[in-house]
Amino acid sequence: MTTSSDLNQPLGGNTMPRFGGIASMMRLPVVNTAQGLNAAFIGVPLDLGTSNRSGARFGPRQIRAESCLLRPYNMATGAAPFDALQVADLGDVPINPYSLSKSVDLIESFYDEVLAHGCTPLTLGGDHTIALPILRAVAKRHGPVALIHVDAHADVNEHMFGEPIAHGTPFRRAVEEGLLAGDKVWQIGLRGTGYASDDFDWPRQQGFTVVPAHEVWWQSLAPLMAQVRKRIGPDHPVYISFDIDGLDPSFAGGTGTPEIGGLSVAQGLEIVRGCRGLNVIGCDLVEVSPPYDSSGNTALLAANLLYEMLCVLPGVPCR
Amino acid sequence: MTTSSDLNQPLGGNTMPRFGGIASMMRLPVVNTAQGLNAAFIGVPLDLGTSNRSGARFGPRQIRAESCLLRPYNMATGAAPFDALQVADLGDVPINPYSLSKSVDLIESFYDEVLAHGCTPLTLGGDHTIALPILRAVAKRHGPVALIHVDAHADVNEHMFGEPIAHGTPFRRAVEEGLLAGDKVWQIGLRGTGYASDDFDWPRQQGFTVVPAHEVWWQSLAPLMAQVRKRIGPDHPVYISFDIDGLDPSFAGGTGTPEIGGLSVAQGLEIVRGCRGLNVIGCDLVEVSPPYDSSGNTALLAANLLYEMLCVLPGVPCR
Amino acid sequence: MTTSSDLNQPLGGNTMPRFGGIASMMRLPVVNTAQGLNAAFIGVPLDLGTSNRSGARFGPRQIRAESCLLRPYNMATGAAPFDALQVADLGDVPINPYSLSKSVDLIESFYDEVLAHGCTPLTLGGDHTIALPILRAVAKRHGPVALIHVDAHADVNEHMFGEPIAHGTPFRRAVEEGLLAGDKVWQIGLRGTGYASDDFDWPRQQGFTVVPAHEVWWQSLAPLMAQVRKRIGPDHPVYISFDIDGLDPSFAGGTGTPEIGGLSVAQGLEIVRGCRGLNVIGCDLVEVSPPYDSSGNTALLAANLLYEMLCVLPGVPCR
Amino acid sequence: MTTSSDLNQPLGGNTMPRFGGIASMMRLPVVNTAQGLNAAFIGVPLDLGTSNRSGARFGPRQIRAESCLLRPYNMATGAAPFDALQVADLGDVPINPYSLSKSVDLIESFYDEVLAHGCTPLTLGGDHTIALPILRAVAKRHGPVALIHVDAHADVNEHMFGEPIAHGTPFRRAVEEGLLAGDKVWQIGLRGTGYASDDFDWPRQQGFTVVPAHEVWWQSLAPLMAQVRKRIGPDHPVYISFDIDGLDPSFAGGTGTPEIGGLSVAQGLEIVRGCRGLNVIGCDLVEVSPPYDSSGNTALLAANLLYEMLCVLPGVPCR
Amino acid sequence: MTTSSDLNQPLGGNTMPRFGGIASMMRLPVVNTAQGLNAAFIGVPLDLGTSNRSGARFGPRQIRAESCLLRPYNMATGAAPFDALQVADLGDVPINPYSLSKSVDLIESFYDEVLAHGCTPLTLGGDHTIALPILRAVAKRHGPVALIHVDAHADVNEHMFGEPIAHGTPFRRAVEEGLLAGDKVWQIGLRGTGYASDDFDWPRQQGFTVVPAHEVWWQSLAPLMAQVRKRIGPDHPVYISFDIDGLDPSFAGGTGTPEIGGLSVAQGLEIVRGCRGLNVIGCDLVEVSPPYDSSGNTALLAANLLYEMLCVLPGVPCR
Amino acid sequence: MTTSSDLNQPLGGNTMPRFGGIASMMRLPVVNTAQGLNAAFIGVPLDLGTSNRSGARFGPRQIRAESCLLRPYNMATGAAPFDALQVADLGDVPINPYSLSKSVDLIESFYDEVLAHGCTPLTLGGDHTIALPILRAVAKRHGPVALIHVDAHADVNEHMFGEPIAHGTPFRRAVEEGLLAGDKVWQIGLRGTGYASDDFDWPRQQGFTVVPAHEVWWQSLAPLMAQVRKRIGPDHPVYISFDIDGLDPSFAGGTGTPEIGGLSVAQGLEIVRGCRGLNVIGCDLVEVSPPYDSSGNTALLAANLLYEMLCVLPGVPCR
Repeated sequence: MTTSSDLNQPLGGNTMPRFGGIASMMRLPVVNTAQGLNAAFIGVPLDLGTSNRSGARFGPRQIRAESCLLRPYNMATGAAPFDALQVADLGDVPINPYSLSKSVDLIESFYDEVLAHGCTPLTLGGDHTIALPILRAVAKRHGPVALIHVDAHADVNEHMFGEPIAHGTPFRRAVEEGLLAGDKVWQIGLRGTGYASDDFDWPRQQGFTVVPAHEVWWQSLAPLMAQVRKRIGPDHPVYISFDIDGLDPSFAGGTGTPEIGGLSVAQGLEIVRGCRGLNVIGCDLVEVSPPYDSSGNTALLAANLLYEMLCVLPGVPCR
Repeated sequence: MTTSSDLNQPLGGNTMPRFGGIASMMRLPVVNTAQGLNAAFIGVPLDLGTSNRSGARFGPRQIRAESCLLRPYNMATGAAPFDALQVADLGDVPINPYSLSKSVDLIESFYDEVLAHGCTPLTLGGDHTIALPILRAVAKRHGPVALIHVDAHADVNEHMFGEPIAHGTPFRRAVEEGLLAGDKVWQIGLRGTGYASDDFDWPRQQGFTVVPAHEVWWQSLAPLMAQVRKRIGPDHPVYISFDIDGLDPSFAGGTGTPEIGGLSVAQGLEIVRGCRGLNVIGCDLVEVSPPYDSSGNTALLAANLLYEMLCVLPGVPCR
Repeated sequence: MTTSSDLNQPLGGNTMPRFGGIASMMRLPVVNTAQGLNAAFIGVPLDLGTSNRSGARFGPRQIRAESCLLRPYNMATGAAPFDALQVADLGDVPINPYSLSKSVDLIESFYDEVLAHGCTPLTLGGDHTIALPILRAVAKRHGPVALIHVDAHADVNEHMFGEPIAHGTPFRRAVEEGLLAGDKVWQIGLRGTGYASDDFDWPRQQGFTVVPAHEVWWQSLAPLMAQVRKRIGPDHPVYISFDIDGLDPSFAGGTGTPEIGGLSVAQGLEIVRGCRGLNVIGCDLVEVSPPYDSSGNTALLAANLLYEMLCVLPGVPCR
Repeated sequence: MTTSSDLNQPLGGNTMPRFGGIASMMRLPVVNTAQGLNAAFIGVPLDLGTSNRSGARFGPRQIRAESCLLRPYNMATGAAPFDALQVADLGDVPINPYSLSKSVDLIESFYDEVLAHGCTPLTLGGDHTIALPILRAVAKRHGPVALIHVDAHADVNEHMFGEPIAHGTPFRRAVEEGLLAGDKVWQIGLRGTGYASDDFDWPRQQGFTVVPAHEVWWQSLAPLMAQVRKRIGPDHPVYISFDIDGLDPSFAGGTGTPEIGGLSVAQGLEIVRGCRGLNVIGCDLVEVSPPYDSSGNTALLAANLLYEMLCVLPGVPCR
Repeated sequence: MTTSSDLNQPLGGNTMPRFGGIASMMRLPVVNTAQGLNAAFIGVPLDLGTSNRSGARFGPRQIRAESCLLRPYNMATGAAPFDALQVADLGDVPINPYSLSKSVDLIESFYDEVLAHGCTPLTLGGDHTIALPILRAVAKRHGPVALIHVDAHADVNEHMFGEPIAHGTPFRRAVEEGLLAGDKVWQIGLRGTGYASDDFDWPRQQGFTVVPAHEVWWQSLAPLMAQVRKRIGPDHPVYISFDIDGLDPSFAGGTGTPEIGGLSVAQGLEIVRGCRGLNVIGCDLVEVSPPYDSSGNTALLAANLLYEMLCVLPGVPCR
Repeated sequence: MTTSSDLNQPLGGNTMPRFGGIASMMRLPVVNTAQGLNAAFIGVPLDLGTSNRSGARFGPRQIRAESCLLRPYNMATGAAPFDALQVADLGDVPINPYSLSKSVDLIESFYDEVLAHGCTPLTLGGDHTIALPILRAVAKRHGPVALIHVDAHADVNEHMFGEPIAHGTPFRRAVEEGLLAGDKVWQIGLRGTGYASDDFDWPRQQGFTVVPAHEVWWQSLAPLMAQVRKRIGPDHPVYISFDIDGLDPSFAGGTGTPEIGGLSVAQGLEIVRGCRGLNVIGCDLVEVSPPYDSSGNTALLAANLLYEMLCVLPGVPCR
């Protein structure tokens, strides 16, 4: 680990007004290689896998723009990620804007290289399809991972419009390909309408723990996360996949397949903060669709959640 | 009841992408008669009764557009309405765009005919004035009905700007005309400012149960609904009138007379789902104003609530 | 041709308020087959070929919604299309939302069938990629066609991101496949920035007439269209492909790749109206992107242009 | 006429920032009577006569808000209205929000009183229905008036949805009631689609001069206005009724029934400025619909046009 | 105190439709002096102190516009402010739009005069910088005040971009200048990211009670306010400074520096209503930024909160 | 001049999709020094000088975001700037967000350094105040400059709200400070309302050529620019200051002080393209206010105009 004085710091508001400066993630330096980085923000501007509203292709750009409001210290948890980790913005994966399948391969290759440098990726989506190639790269390096999956949808469809790969199928494919440790998977926030009354059964058959949103209305999720930490333990590699539509549309309206009755931001923060102590080896925040986010506040929420994920990475000091 | 194989089904996302196809409610068939239907979605594109922001005239069209995201099965309750009921979209009532009073008569006639076929109407408003002619038709067929009324406002004004019929008076008129079983009326979510400190007294004098929003902040409404079911019993005909402004503007900002401090969507869902077991003979969802709903998410919420109402109709199988 | 009394008519505003009724194109009947139709509006909700902003997948739905304002008679030209042609809304082509190449094949098949019935298609796009499969179907039936192509971009790229098929390549492919009568092709409104200074040379080498926007600022295009009519003559089959971005963003801001300094709506109308007397055998209006069209006015413009195309079809009576 | 030092002046930007202060028209004093005024801005917040999009009820409020940018002198014409006329904001007519017919009567009475004081009304609409009661009051005082009518629509329907009074009928009624000097009526900017090919014939039969928009594309309207002035002469009372939809939606998108291919703002200004020298005795600017004007720029245009009308009133000094 | 019959009343919706009339606060009379007033709404259209998004300069105008929906009686608490207090709209402070420091002085002078009349100011911001000059004026009259400060941010920065006065510093300056009774200060809703992990320590060192938002998720704040009332007692002068960003962006997205995970509106109402019984001598509601509030609902919330503050002023009768 | 192979090139759409990649101007490299650059894009995120709507502080960020659509070659003129000039994005000037006067000094210093490297600045505003410090720096290096000033407003106020420096005063100050060659100044597009009827006289007294917008409606400005080139000649240093509000709000609605009846984009392009052959030594594009530009199209227009300015710099090859 680099000594603190060499660590990248977000450009501060007293050096450059928050509305100024190039809009990289948290106004961190933009670099071309993961070499020497402990963690990196990476954009995947893909929306070819969406089934309803498109627009997630602009997610990374908008999340970066709104992230300029973020300051380095976490006032709630005391986490100080930039005191310990070398972090940068690695820019975007050059996905193929006309081919979902080629894009999936481009993403996997990109993450292979990032992971080869021992760098933990924090991904700015993009639609949820991208979780599959990222998990492929992750599992190559870490083996089957535990998964904390926040979402309105289980994303375990057998296929969509006949296609095996789309934003509603990544975790079905991940199971089939052995990328997940099935008994260490939590799906939190599921809800809405489905194609069959047994849509939630398949995950449970794989050993997943399914936490539908309506079962946790009115409740803190801190107790759930204590169970999660106990079950997974401090060593097993954990991936966090956070679909912004896991949260209620009142908080995160700028998304492509919103479902009513979702989690609150407080619950979302409890989930992420509850991952502290786990061996988190990668994270994503997906499905922000800027054309449906006229105030920019969904992107701002996403930027904050990505920052909170950074704050629970192993090695980040905390109060 | 028709055998299942003949029942209309919403057009599925694997047959036609959700962003495609003619925007009928849930992409169900559009029909010209209620004959043979167990339930029907009906639009009433009226906003001549609004006192503040207009725009509810586009409510039915926008609710239909957003409803295209809905799938047939209710993942939270297991309800499978299209396995048992013949449901279609009956299109819109051709209200008179220049005369509120003539429109009220046109609506009543339209519902008379729908009800004559034994079809349960699920109405897409339109401003709340429409509840009066619908209740007139309903009471002609079913007698005075029990009422589950979700709203920020009691809508029991003596008059508005001197007029007896407007979107703030329907339930006063309904009482006067004997359309309601006064001891079986719940008004849930009331709040805001009023013209007199006794604005909530009149309903109570009629025997209504008034549940102001601030009295149920922080609480599940499942216990309330258990009381409701007990009081009404399984046979008495029940009408559900759901003004979207009963919910907080954070969830339902696209409405004409928003009031702060409202119900949550979770509470709204608890109310509707809590009607299961009642003899629901009609429902409406009113006051969505698309010009104030730039993301479309208020209309999406409305579409979901209408679907949830369908799910609690008598005869719908459930887990 | 059907006798007038049997011809479909748009639902009138004195029968159903314009804000009511199911939002089909001009509130015409929705049918499932082109049989018996002289012309049909067809939606192609595709945006997988876009290089910048997506969202055109919602173009057909939004154009239909705004088309509800249209009345049957053309006050400027006296055209009365519904007095002579049997017209309906054929709904949308069920494109594959995850695969551009499969979608292209689905579109071609759909149009093969429409054309087999002798029905003239008027297409609501969708991104400009769709012009290729439509031209394939058209040329199968009519041979190489003349083309009136309004656009900011020539759409004759060799490839985009290495792909042969995308929204910037259809007319290159069309030339290569022999779908066009090269000396009877006009590209009107071209402008903007390019990848090479000779981007406009290739079309000219194919015999196309290129009319850059800046060469016709301040001018009526009626004289140009007189030349077009003279060159093509009354018999040669003509296809009109109208990319809404051919018009200036002040008129048509709701599109994916806007370019400044474009044509005016007056010029656009002169182009379409100037096609009267040609043997127009198909038309499209593409690249409306509703998420960038918050007022709906770009979609309204598109609906009007499609109506104007209908008005110049062979057989439509006129003042 | 009052001496100049006593004349109301708009609150200046060097006294109160333009974004501050109560939003009256041009930040003029708000008064309760027309007594002592030469001219007055009056709001008529009515949208019960609209056939498509509502929202014009908020027109007066939004026009006032945007008018705060206006300064007292007309830089193009040199007009200095506040050097000669006593002008104020008379507030709004308290229309009946639930009854179009009662509102029409309320408006007429309000204008009767304003006119009784010899005050020239400049009206902020509201939908175009309001022209009828205003013309009734105007004709009572001035006899049949000449009319400069800018609009996309002739507004001479026999009826709408069976009703004699709506926003598409005022000038038919005005003719029938003898309110207009038929040979001194100009309708400028007409266009769009109609219910019958002879929609423009009726006005011509009344002696109106009809100037369809497409006949004046590319042209200055100064010559037309010279003809107008010659025909009407300096004494005949003239009313200006300016429907914002006479202008193209690119300039004035925030309106209820937009039609493509309209007049430019330059043409609109030429029309109003061309009325200098006429005996203008009243004006209105109607059909601004703020919910469809997210930038506020349509309201700003309306505020400017109303100011330009003030600048051509008799008695206003000019360069 | 004036006798009730002489008290100003908000213009009622049965006298003038809510969408009509000049947009003063609650449509109260606009006056030029605080003489004779018990309380006054005052706008301070300043955004020169903002560090991120500007636009709060339009806060007063937009809050007034949305306040037109408010009726005089508080249905939740029974408060009837207009039965006892003489209240008016005092218009806006003419701040200097190009100089923050001069504006601060202008504000202080304005409030000196208001307070000299014994009038309680209820301020419509503007950015939070304005709290400093208001507190300066208040402390001159009342001595060091107790403070109920709702906010996402402590606003106790030593400086911002080297400047001592900005929207993130007012309470540091207030402490330094002896304007606050440090042991009677509550800061409620703090959260987000900071420049140093000890950002919350300084307030506590001054004796402030800091209530971070995440410590009260899921909880009613009524118990907290009971403690507040006990500690302050009925006599000590209390100032309420309510930054709308203390509430979650789901409720109040139209603000300049939104932070996720904030208070609910219910909590906000409990705070304000919980001030009943305190000697409230002034209030502000700041940081509404209309350009980011396209629906107007943040401004509506602000208008309601200001009304609720009015309802807890000493002397207001209550159920 | 650097050899072509070393010149920076905009990141191409076939390398990274246009919606991806860090949003620098045209996706050029971001550098920290002007050393070695022929020209540089520089952002000045200031809106402290605005008199009406703020928001221009986000102008640079939004212009950069929309500039990602730009390709390297100018199809209309054949200009190929990146074949000859070394161009980069220099990021933003760190203005002081709370002090206009300090910001003015910071800007001047920044430009002193840029100009010392012989680099031509192309500035992304920011409000028009920034023209003053830039002209100060420019005149220090080049002496009094010729000026092509496109604007709705002359910006020659003596003061605003008593302040000498604001967005309406820069060219008055510039004259007083001897920064301009008065007989070589053109102000094009002026219009609107003013504080005095002689507002346009002062510029003319300084020798400026004033071209009010209404005098050039309907006309190409190519002839005007021929006169400009003749008068200035090829050697005199020329500065271009382009206020986006010089163009009509239909093209550029996202600005702070819009005025109706403005120039067309075609005219704007003719002005900029007409500067080819002049010794252009600096340019700015100011007053884009993203909060009022929901589609992003005003920022896109600004990005294009800045690119067109780059295309007319000395040394840029052309067809």
